[in-house]
Amino acid sequence: MSVEAVGDVGLIGLAVMGQNLVLNMNDHGYVVVAYNRTTSKVDEFLAHEAKDTKIVGAHSIQELCQKLKRPRKIILLVKAGAPVDEFIAQLEPYLEEGDIVIDGGNSHYPDSIRRTKELEAKGLLFVGSGVSGGEEGARFGPSLMPGGSPAAWPHIKNIFQDIAAKTKEGEPCCDWVGETGAGHYVKMVHNGIEYGDMQIIAEAYDILKNGLGLSYDELAATFEEWNKGELDSFLVELTADVLKYKEEGSSVPLVEYIRDAAGQKGTGKWTAIDALDYGIPVTLIGEAVFARCLSALKDERVRASGILGAKEPQDLLVSKSKKDFIEDVRQAMYAAKIISYAQGFMLLREAAKVNNWNLNYGGIAMMWRGGCIIRSAFLKDIHHAFTSNPQLENLLLDPFFTKAILRCQKSFRRVVAQASLWGIPVPAYSTALSFYDGYRSAKVPANLIQAQRDYFGAHTYQLEKEGASGKWHHTNWTGRGGRVSSSTYNA
Amino acid sequence: MSVEAVGDVGLIGLAVMGQNLVLNMNDHGYVVVAYNRTTSKVDEFLAHEAKDTKIVGAHSIQELCQKLKRPRKIILLVKAGAPVDEFIAQLEPYLEEGDIVIDGGNSHYPDSIRRTKELEAKGLLFVGSGVSGGEEGARFGPSLMPGGSPAAWPHIKNIFQDIAAKTKEGEPCCDWVGETGAGHYVKMVHNGIEYGDMQIIAEAYDILKNGLGLSYDELAATFEEWNKGELDSFLVELTADVLKYKEEGSSVPLVEYIRDAAGQKGTGKWTAIDALDYGIPVTLIGEAVFARCLSALKDERVRASGILGAKEPQDLLVSKSKKDFIEDVRQAMYAAKIISYAQGFMLLREAAKVNNWNLNYGGIAMMWRGGCIIRSAFLKDIHHAFTSNPQLENLLLDPFFTKAILRCQKSFRRVVAQASLWGIPVPAYSTALSFYDGYRSAKVPANLIQAQRDYFGAHTYQLEKEGASGKWHHTNWTGRGGRVSSSTYNA
Repeated sequence: MSVEAVGDVGLIGLAVMGQNLVLNMNDHGYVVVAYNRTTSKVDEFLAHEAKDTKIVGAHSIQELCQKLKRPRKIILLVKAGAPVDEFIAQLEPYLEEGDIVIDGGNSHYPDSIRRTKELEAKGLLFVGSGVSGGEEGARFGPSLMPGGSPAAWPHIKNIFQDIAAKTKEGEPCCDWVGETGAGHYVKMVHNGIEYGDMQIIAEAYDILKNGLGLSYDELAATFEEWNKGELDSFLVELTADVLKYKEEGSSVPLVEYIRDAAGQKGTGKWTAIDALDYGIPVTLIGEAVFARCLSALKDERVRASGILGAKEPQDLLVSKSKKDFIEDVRQAMYAAKIISYAQGFMLLREAAKVNNWNLNYGGIAMMWRGGCIIRSAFLKDIHHAFTSNPQLENLLLDPFFTKAILRCQKSFRRVVAQASLWGIPVPAYSTALSFYDGYRSAKVPANLIQAQRDYFGAHTYQLEKEGASGKWHHTNWTGRGGRVSSSTYNA
Repeated sequence: MSVEAVGDVGLIGLAVMGQNLVLNMNDHGYVVVAYNRTTSKVDEFLAHEAKDTKIVGAHSIQELCQKLKRPRKIILLVKAGAPVDEFIAQLEPYLEEGDIVIDGGNSHYPDSIRRTKELEAKGLLFVGSGVSGGEEGARFGPSLMPGGSPAAWPHIKNIFQDIAAKTKEGEPCCDWVGETGAGHYVKMVHNGIEYGDMQIIAEAYDILKNGLGLSYDELAATFEEWNKGELDSFLVELTADVLKYKEEGSSVPLVEYIRDAAGQKGTGKWTAIDALDYGIPVTLIGEAVFARCLSALKDERVRASGILGAKEPQDLLVSKSKKDFIEDVRQAMYAAKIISYAQGFMLLREAAKVNNWNLNYGGIAMMWRGGCIIRSAFLKDIHHAFTSNPQLENLLLDPFFTKAILRCQKSFRRVVAQASLWGIPVPAYSTALSFYDGYRSAKVPANLIQAQRDYFGAHTYQLEKEGASGKWHHTNWTGRGGRVSSSTYNA
């Protein structure tokens, strides 16, 4: 008997994200054909989560394609890397011109750039879409960041915007990001910012718990309180939940017993590497990634603590009340967050330049406003900053954020100083403060570095008064050395 | 007439480093055949710098090879990247089995790994050698870090150790580093550390000049003084020179007029990227690279300073004398330096593991003790730490450095706190302090990060009591969410 093409959209990969995305699309009236390499998972899914839905199962790639209406729309939610190329190769024999392959995994954007070109060359369309929101988001409304073949957008726009999260104002947290790898690039930066936000929260938790000595009840109450103000965000909200969660019969929250060795799956690392490659100082994300690396050296840290771990005196730096200092920490968190996002958008701007993407920064802030891990009230202000001035050079120069950072900086400085004296690590706060103080400095000490480089490597330097286009000078600082200047030596 | 093979060694690339290395080898009695793509440079060199020497010129690759004794030893000092491969390709037709191609440029180590394999497959030998010391070093004794084909070492050992810098004890700052790309890897890390050392000095200069208000005379005197103690190093020495150097008729040192936009040629960046890739928190080098990136945004900084640049009050944090605070800065510099080198050796250890190199850490410290940009008295202590305990887990755990860091940490904390309150950027000092405080902590707040990741992404976590080999747990923190845990979602 012939197979009927009943499916509106197909999905490959029934891990938690895939299952939830399928259920989400089903909720919105789409007939989804679900396939998984281990086909028993398909039956399991149909028997449990997908019971009493219009979801259709497929037990082979061919069956999946046969059951889909043209142009076929097939979402891959499989492990990033080789598996994506493998499934694309398996799909190709059954696809026809105009069919759309959508990679919803956390692929590295250069792969999405390549895949867009490869599939378009074969008459197919490719979409590399960032999907954020984890289990919950996928199930009830993720943030979707699609990019790739522009011709695909009209065919997937309704599905994507229907299943995406909505802002309070009802706007979908999904729009077309840009060409080739732009969708996965924006998702990568989203994840990098997520690393930063989590580190910012972790440092506040550390300062309040080990510096001020707050109890878990006080900690949970503090984060709950903070979530009502300008820090209102999913991560602050869930942190309060985590700080309260106790297992049956335990009087101490579970988090206290969790091993302090953070894992990572690469996207934060990719963001930091990209920042280094593009020469954009995205320092807070870099420190957040390194902080996870250091946390992973658990056994070495335990040994080191026996030798170097003596506690520093915890008496307060300035005679302020516990309450005042908690407010200082809140403002430090807000300031660090502003700086982290400013750095993230600096990177997006550079990436758009390098890759010839036309990125809509206000639109990106909108996509992040709901559904995704970094969703927050704060992103509404960023959205406003970039929509009211699309040419905005830097988030820190937007009137709202200028005012905010100037308001917070005193507290910010006190917290970094305090943690430094207490011996509590604050890599994210301190790098954010140093970036801020460097960014707002017309003159940084790099003039000395240029002099040093010319001294030992004849790298030449420019003069302040001659500006960026001024000529390059070499000085024979020692009276020795040669006539020529360096062209091969690097330092 | 036939060309006579009179040359002991050939060199391609007569920019400043190449010229000086040729003159250095000539001083030690070797007959050097010098070639340059633009052959007029060969004649110029012979007419000027090489006048009245045994140096022989070559005006073609063929002539260069004809004039060299077997096995030929040819040093390339050309721009890293494609030019190296191009010259190797030009050389190959004229080379015979056992001839040795030596790349003395700042090639990226993966290229040296590749080139070693490619040339060995053709019966040739390859050496990728780090060369440090800039103009001066190349001329009077560089630090040499050769790696590649072990069979090449016996043939080049004498030349390399003769022209290399010598320690006070007369030991050459050159030894065999290891297989394939090990030489260029160690040079890369050397350069990364160099970026860190320069940033550490620049921050001290900034704090003393703009925080304490020292004059250039006081600054120069301070660095001269510091160079007599545990900070004794080439970079501190040259900094004193730079702070004193005035042009004819000027009453202000030249450095004051130099544009504060630092350039970079990649090796510091490579080190930071490698650290991220290997998951080793080499944070100080990372911040040093980012600080150069930020300095390069000169025009944006000038604009930002008009909006955010208001100066913070400069009154001292604690009632200490100017003199005491200068000593605090000296100790902060020393502490940051110890931490930076500890991070650098952490990276070397990981690279050796990943690439199956057998690195001699004491030997590496020895190679860096003289000739190179980071040469210092300090490296003698590092050499001692690794020779007295080759299994040393971390430099910070060596008794000498443990004692040193514990002695300096109070001053270190005061300086970071002070700069933070003053609004003077100290990215290197603050990241070093945060790394130190994290490293010496048996428990960091990554337990919260693991809980957060499990909450939104079902990433699972381990329990403190079950350790690294303990099983992975997933908690349904919200009471909602699915049965399964994440396998494809990355965050």
